[in-house]
Amino acid sequence: MLELFEATLRQLQTPEEPELLYAPIIYSMSGGGKRLRPVLLLLTAEAFGGNIDEAMIAAQAVEVFHNFTLLHDDIMDNASMRRGKPSVFAKWGGNVAILSGDAMLITAYKLLAELSAERLPRVLRIFNDMALEVCEGQQYDMDFEQKQKVSVVDYLQMIERKTSALLSGSAMIGATIAGASDDDIKKIYRFATELGLAFQLQDDMLDSYGDEALGKKIGGDILEGKQTYLMVQAMSRATDEQREVLRTTHLNTNLSDVEKIATVKALYDKLDVKRATEQQIELRFERALSVLDTLSIERSCTVQLAEFARNLMGRKK
Amino acid sequence: MLELFEATLRQLQTPEEPELLYAPIIYSMSGGGKRLRPVLLLLTAEAFGGNIDEAMIAAQAVEVFHNFTLLHDDIMDNASMRRGKPSVFAKWGGNVAILSGDAMLITAYKLLAELSAERLPRVLRIFNDMALEVCEGQQYDMDFEQKQKVSVVDYLQMIERKTSALLSGSAMIGATIAGASDDDIKKIYRFATELGLAFQLQDDMLDSYGDEALGKKIGGDILEGKQTYLMVQAMSRATDEQREVLRTTHLNTNLSDVEKIATVKALYDKLDVKRATEQQIELRFERALSVLDTLSIERSCTVQLAEFARNLMGRKK
Repeated sequence: MLELFEATLRQLQTPEEPELLYAPIIYSMSGGGKRLRPVLLLLTAEAFGGNIDEAMIAAQAVEVFHNFTLLHDDIMDNASMRRGKPSVFAKWGGNVAILSGDAMLITAYKLLAELSAERLPRVLRIFNDMALEVCEGQQYDMDFEQKQKVSVVDYLQMIERKTSALLSGSAMIGATIAGASDDDIKKIYRFATELGLAFQLQDDMLDSYGDEALGKKIGGDILEGKQTYLMVQAMSRATDEQREVLRTTHLNTNLSDVEKIATVKALYDKLDVKRATEQQIELRFERALSVLDTLSIERSCTVQLAEFARNLMGRKK
Repeated sequence: MLELFEATLRQLQTPEEPELLYAPIIYSMSGGGKRLRPVLLLLTAEAFGGNIDEAMIAAQAVEVFHNFTLLHDDIMDNASMRRGKPSVFAKWGGNVAILSGDAMLITAYKLLAELSAERLPRVLRIFNDMALEVCEGQQYDMDFEQKQKVSVVDYLQMIERKTSALLSGSAMIGATIAGASDDDIKKIYRFATELGLAFQLQDDMLDSYGDEALGKKIGGDILEGKQTYLMVQAMSRATDEQREVLRTTHLNTNLSDVEKIATVKALYDKLDVKRATEQQIELRFERALSVLDTLSIERSCTVQLAEFARNLMGRKK
């Protein structure tokens, strides 16, 4: 499905002029990425027996939207690199990144406008709600940077918007294009939401406990003082004194990066947050998979969705 | 029609949280403005006998879109004031302005998604094309800042995108919602395009030849070294020596603002660009009005559109 999607995406056309508006769009879209959201959309449409050509249109729209969010996020985060290449922001500057991002968001809607009149109204509504949720997630994420303490519940609500919404929206759109029932659409939303949470929590955990041998750089979130599931769990369990250490270590100019990471991880170990995170990941992942068994379609149809979920989490079974 | 629109707009709801995402949207939308685009949309729908409730939805969408463009333009132009109040950019900073602008663009599409299934596909396509044209116009405008010389044709093509597209798109959407024929929609597009050009050219002219007694500040474009119709006309008529003066006067630190404006205006007078601009305004305005007589609807239906055009240009007849 990924190959089919990549082949379609290569056909995506934009006007040539003005170059500074459109070249960044082509640059962003050809920068690779795992294409998780369009693949999930296509697999969901396929599971429900939908028209893959029509699903392919919407799949491109969600991928263009995803890359638009990255483009604007890179301005807000002052990020110079994206997928091993200079970000649009670094390569062309903030103004070009703002405006070409806007054009990219509109391009996503141009793709949606190609859907059949029968499917368009509903898909457009799901897409809009999804897109606003992603913006809300990004705003909460920025809000959290200014906050001393973020509750575990607030953190989960933030990542449900910032990470899950685009997956659950994609799955719902795939199901909608295939004419799935309202009940099945609700369930597939739950599947992708839980899967997205499991995925984000695992991403949080790998920042502290990943395998450097696998090329994963450890401790980036700790050094940036970012809110992660481990940090909010640790803060909720810590004594006042430990909390102060958790809050301030990344700012401590007397410590090297290695020492900062070791300091925070020592507290994570002491407060047992790795296990809490693993349990939460398991819970979310199991919930996601169990939803698949409740869909009205035959079990054989959901095999690829289950496989997508396992691949996403890097699991064999 | 304006009162009806303002009353509807006051009902526009956004979620309350996250505040930094949604408060700037309400702030932008309640900042006043002439509401030209929604009023044109509503008058066009009315002229063709359309459903005003449905037109009102689209009218809000184009006004939200217009204010979104101003919000992002203010970041790109580093503009601290907008309609006599601090811009969102100045009040909340660049990151909030980027993200709340994105949410605003999505909000425009959320409004469109409320249209009837019958009208939605076509209106969405017109809206998307219009929105991309506005982005293209903004990019060309920024490109022109870096250019030594911009041709008159290129300048007209830029303002056709940056200023006319939103008016012509609004008029086409109004006509489409009213079920106008393809032929009438094409004509109403031409009406609003020409009117938009006349309006922008007049705006350009008033910067140099406006009435300061009417509160119009003279010479802002000259001091910024902006491309305007007067400047591109002057450059096309100037000798090499005059061209050098036109290009560099705004950068000349030996001159006061008053002297800079006087220097450029003296060249405008010598090169007769005021008359050239007036002629172009007349041409465009007459073309716009004459289109109205060719529509398939009765002449009495177009009275308000003609009045809108005259009001826009500040004319009695």
